[in-house]
Amino acid sequence: MEISRPIKNFITLFSKIPGIGPRQATRIVFWLLHQPKDIQTEFSKTIENATTKIKLCADCFFPFEPKNNESLCEICRNQQREHSIICVVEKETDLLSIEKTNKYKGVYHILGGLMSEIDEKKKQELNIKPLLLRIKKSFQEKKPIKEIILALSPTSEGNLTTYYLEKAIKNLGLNIKITKLGRGLPHGGEVEFADSETLINALEGRK
Amino acid sequence: MEISRPIKNFITLFSKIPGIGPRQATRIVFWLLHQPKDIQTEFSKTIENATTKIKLCADCFFPFEPKNNESLCEICRNQQREHSIICVVEKETDLLSIEKTNKYKGVYHILGGLMSEIDEKKKQELNIKPLLLRIKKSFQEKKPIKEIILALSPTSEGNLTTYYLEKAIKNLGLNIKITKLGRGLPHGGEVEFADSETLINALEGRK
Repeated sequence: MEISRPIKNFITLFSKIPGIGPRQATRIVFWLLHQPKDIQTEFSKTIENATTKIKLCADCFFPFEPKNNESLCEICRNQQREHSIICVVEKETDLLSIEKTNKYKGVYHILGGLMSEIDEKKKQELNIKPLLLRIKKSFQEKKPIKEIILALSPTSEGNLTTYYLEKAIKNLGLNIKITKLGRGLPHGGEVEFADSETLINALEGRK
Repeated sequence: MEISRPIKNFITLFSKIPGIGPRQATRIVFWLLHQPKDIQTEFSKTIENATTKIKLCADCFFPFEPKNNESLCEICRNQQREHSIICVVEKETDLLSIEKTNKYKGVYHILGGLMSEIDEKKKQELNIKPLLLRIKKSFQEKKPIKEIILALSPTSEGNLTTYYLEKAIKNLGLNIKITKLGRGLPHGGEVEFADSETLINALEGRK
């Protein structure tokens, strides 16, 4: 018994999604085939809708639904926001987490991932060039960026990317403040159980 | 910042897939939105193809691609197979595993899940009625089913379902042999590390 071609294609394609392997893709397709017809149609329609109606913001790369063919997202269009401060994040969900704090009034730039020492190719896929262009353009248009917040996770890949970006932005030779997120004990974390690196950061960042 | 409606719909719908929660659905949609346009289109097309081209076999419920509008799958159409033996399995992947052994020449019946003591509703969703009808029909058409193999996993849900099916088939009052998969030590398993239930089964099933 061979699995039919359309099912095989489904498994091959869905196995490409990060976090989903061939086994889970197989379970998904068989689950879907046992769903009512209207739910099955809803799945292809929903993907079609998301991928055709959603654009990436030309400035910050956040995915949004343009209402009147505009190229900028809600935040980048908002004149109440501080456009001279850019918060650089790895991914959309990081942006959403920062927005939830209601404490940040600047704009964003989504990198789309982090650099990796192992995978040199990944660097090319990140939105690093558009960030540098965006900064340069702001100076040419006399609305200069004043501060770049590098809000990447303090993992080894995050640190590598932060280090690289800091150097690249400094190399532009423009007068820009570069800041990073404060490090230390997480809210609710206990001193006793913190690792040394966290404690060192907490001591150094004391106030 | 609000997530756009088409993205929200995607997250809501994909969270319904067993094993995928809202967090993974969010990661999937943002990953997909950063893919090239042709890959995005491939996703909706592949789902559409799988769900429109694939039918469930009218006899055994295995999903297959009909070539000439036939209603039975490759196995159920195959006259070389032994149609008087039905192997009842929980799901498609169980059928594929049994096929891979190349030892079974009968036909199958996919239940589409197992009964649960907690979720009474689940019983209604299983292909139990079609199985009983299929058996009765075989006797009416003078091509009687001789043996039903209940090939369900020896878990508590599998045992509950096996018990229920055995009773239901016996209640038909027809002359049918009901068998279950042999139990004992798995190939390569060590006696020392086997649990008592497995050892009891292995002792009882000795040959």
